[in-house]
Amino acid sequence: MIKSSVSKEIVQYGAQRTTVSDSITVEEPLEIRLEYMDTQELRTMMRLAVTMRTPSDDRDLVRGFLFTEGIIEQFSDIIEIRETGDNIVTIVLDNKVQFDPTLFQRNFYASSSCGVCGKASIESIQHETIFLPWKSKFTIASSKLMKLPDDLRQRQVTFMQTGGIHACALYDKDGQFLAIAEDVGRHNAMDKLIGSQSSMPIHDTMVIVSGRASFELVQKASRAGIGLFAAIGAPSSLAVDLATEQGMTLIGFLKSDKFNCYNREDRIV
Amino acid sequence: MIKSSVSKEIVQYGAQRTTVSDSITVEEPLEIRLEYMDTQELRTMMRLAVTMRTPSDDRDLVRGFLFTEGIIEQFSDIIEIRETGDNIVTIVLDNKVQFDPTLFQRNFYASSSCGVCGKASIESIQHETIFLPWKSKFTIASSKLMKLPDDLRQRQVTFMQTGGIHACALYDKDGQFLAIAEDVGRHNAMDKLIGSQSSMPIHDTMVIVSGRASFELVQKASRAGIGLFAAIGAPSSLAVDLATEQGMTLIGFLKSDKFNCYNREDRIV
Repeated sequence: MIKSSVSKEIVQYGAQRTTVSDSITVEEPLEIRLEYMDTQELRTMMRLAVTMRTPSDDRDLVRGFLFTEGIIEQFSDIIEIRETGDNIVTIVLDNKVQFDPTLFQRNFYASSSCGVCGKASIESIQHETIFLPWKSKFTIASSKLMKLPDDLRQRQVTFMQTGGIHACALYDKDGQFLAIAEDVGRHNAMDKLIGSQSSMPIHDTMVIVSGRASFELVQKASRAGIGLFAAIGAPSSLAVDLATEQGMTLIGFLKSDKFNCYNREDRIV
Repeated sequence: MIKSSVSKEIVQYGAQRTTVSDSITVEEPLEIRLEYMDTQELRTMMRLAVTMRTPSDDRDLVRGFLFTEGIIEQFSDIIEIRETGDNIVTIVLDNKVQFDPTLFQRNFYASSSCGVCGKASIESIQHETIFLPWKSKFTIASSKLMKLPDDLRQRQVTFMQTGGIHACALYDKDGQFLAIAEDVGRHNAMDKLIGSQSSMPIHDTMVIVSGRASFELVQKASRAGIGLFAAIGAPSSLAVDLATEQGMTLIGFLKSDKFNCYNREDRIV
């Protein structure tokens, strides 16, 4: 049974502190493999892409992906779609379809992700990362945390002009502003923010993002050793899993009067 | 002078139709190149990634990117950052840094983009695409368009549960619902939606997205020959440029009582 959301017990802060069951959007990697006839007329297999997606309609996803990325000109160019394994889909192209892998790679750009499987990646990060969030002794009062959305909004200069740009900002344990970065891509905003710091790790700070908490953003903040990650929007399932594994406190739906805490509540005082 | 936003004359529909000057977030590609010492002790250059970003703080962006993606363990591993050309940055690593390009490529996944330069890409799409949006004779009444945000919200089943997932939907010229797709990644939602259709092009439909209009989303919709693209959120500068080049009508900030039209207003009747 494919599920687009999962339930999790979380802590809601507001007029009072309550434990509730919350629904979280599922985020999981999908590896897309392509089987095609190469220029030597040999059937060839290549790993085309790994995308972080919500499981459901995977066949529609890969049909659409191949078409919108210009690999096929019509859906009938696909003769078979096989669910080869857990989170792996193989697309078999008709022999008449000309596919040039080098041309394809040129049109794609690299964006950060976990590799084939979120689970594998979570483990690999734990081994590779020096500055783990669980080493952070950062704490903050819930009252100070709830003041941050307003403070952030006032500092989003480009957002005020355009209404359409992501922001990430760093604050200290007293809720004092340290730095902000804005970008049309939320992972870029996080990279700009971390790249603006003089050295790593930054265990004594927290980060707030104007949008949702994805796996990718939590992964980037985790590398910097950040102990508390707060999102104005919702977290994905894989973001919660990764934060839990890394000992990072994850806050979602942060508002001026309430927020959700997904783990490591000990950093809220 | 680096600008994070640009001004453009647009048409605002609401109680009345007015022409206003609007600020739009700039979206431009940045090519990140890496100069490093390879295993044969030769200085080597590779094209690491192309990211769609808002110009500003490019040095912070690439410093942060290299750190959060695990290419460097400390900022002092970088000995120089050169702005090599228009939207190209070259990072020179210290000779002592071990960099394995094959390991790096495994940790990255491909996501769609324009290639090196938005302009070049806009031209290449025009030549490669068969189903151009400008061939679409789609029109819709502004009153029907303003009913869509409410209709879309009611159909976002997973969003209602979780509060955190993107949606894309197709509607016909009478504002009648045709199809919807939800995903944690907005490009995946668009691919699922297009992949759910039986054949291409779909000149006689419009698409609505729950978030912002990026270059990538407009590019995908454009491949399907969609004539009208409406976003609940803001468009980026490159999304507007691409829609204009492709003869696609782009609507932003669509609400129940008003919206912005960025070009090809003739499809609004």
